[in-house]
Amino acid sequence: MVKTKDQETVRRGRPGYDQQSVLNVAVGVFNKHGYEATSMGILAENLGISKSAIYHHVPSKGDLLRLALEEALGSLEAVLENPSASVGRADARLEFVLRGTVQVLCDKLPYVTLLLRLRGNTEIERDALERRRTFDHTVAELVDAARTEGSLRGDIDPRITARLLFGTINSIVEWYKPGGPLTPQKLADDLIAMMFDGLHLPAAARVIA
Amino acid sequence: MVKTKDQETVRRGRPGYDQQSVLNVAVGVFNKHGYEATSMGILAENLGISKSAIYHHVPSKGDLLRLALEEALGSLEAVLENPSASVGRADARLEFVLRGTVQVLCDKLPYVTLLLRLRGNTEIERDALERRRTFDHTVAELVDAARTEGSLRGDIDPRITARLLFGTINSIVEWYKPGGPLTPQKLADDLIAMMFDGLHLPAAARVIA
Repeated sequence: MVKTKDQETVRRGRPGYDQQSVLNVAVGVFNKHGYEATSMGILAENLGISKSAIYHHVPSKGDLLRLALEEALGSLEAVLENPSASVGRADARLEFVLRGTVQVLCDKLPYVTLLLRLRGNTEIERDALERRRTFDHTVAELVDAARTEGSLRGDIDPRITARLLFGTINSIVEWYKPGGPLTPQKLADDLIAMMFDGLHLPAAARVIA
Repeated sequence: MVKTKDQETVRRGRPGYDQQSVLNVAVGVFNKHGYEATSMGILAENLGISKSAIYHHVPSKGDLLRLALEEALGSLEAVLENPSASVGRADARLEFVLRGTVQVLCDKLPYVTLLLRLRGNTEIERDALERRRTFDHTVAELVDAARTEGSLRGDIDPRITARLLFGTINSIVEWYKPGGPLTPQKLADDLIAMMFDGLHLPAAARVIA
């Protein structure tokens, strides 16, 4: 029987856990209690293993945080590295990046939630916030480029536009249920429809109706 | 010399503080440390007065929370009680309510922030969350009515539409600076422009440009 990669990884760690599954549980606990309020003892309790068994998977609580933030930030940065983010009209590139961001939020919901709630109290947190700012800055530049090419309205300050776009998209971590009837694709369609074209039916469509 | 209401209120309380100014400081501390993690001792330290001096203004920490949430919820509910929220076309009523919500968020930023971060661990918090749900439900009904009258697009589920509207508006508590160059009125204009008409320039405007 061919073993899957997951089975191999489990085999190398403690019975029942590999690093990824320890991380999944840890991220849930961090989101519930806050990173700082979470001790290795609380983590061990939630995992149902001893503290020393956790150290078998990761050297410290900080490493769990670093790995978790890498999962969120690495996925977001991969969206920007796709050629569709850098080739073509700016509004199409912006739409591609926003759709990709929604997909990452839905796929890695607890990881992105952790990233969005960071306060920057430690070096690891500050590094992550710096990478998030760089990501946000790149999107703000796309907004600027789309305004300059004349495809986005010019009466809203581009920095405010970028904040509203991120505010709208990031708010989905508060309510989105992965695996439910609303797929990430339909959610991205809805968000792009509202943000780019607005909720109002065009006057023309209203006359026809 | 005619005394203002504020001076009268201060005179009745401890020197330098009235209930409202104790509340302002308490809300800031709750938002920084979390309500549960804030002890009366931490509050006293931030106010620069003794614990017993706080009890001169309010009977308990719970009363501070209740008063603070009342300030946010009472202001939001007052928007719905305005005749403009119940008379006329549904899309105009919805726009009125969303503009009023933005104004309350900007005017009472720390109070609304406290409301938005509630977890519902106590009776006071659960009551506040219930009132917030009722508010949200009324707005969702307006979205529904606007769809039915044919002024809002029908391809987005009205519950998702309501969530996106609130997500967008509520996200401003994360970055809005009261008293800065962006007035609540201009922010409301920007939000309504994006949410109702979209960021894309209409094709007609682009042809002209």
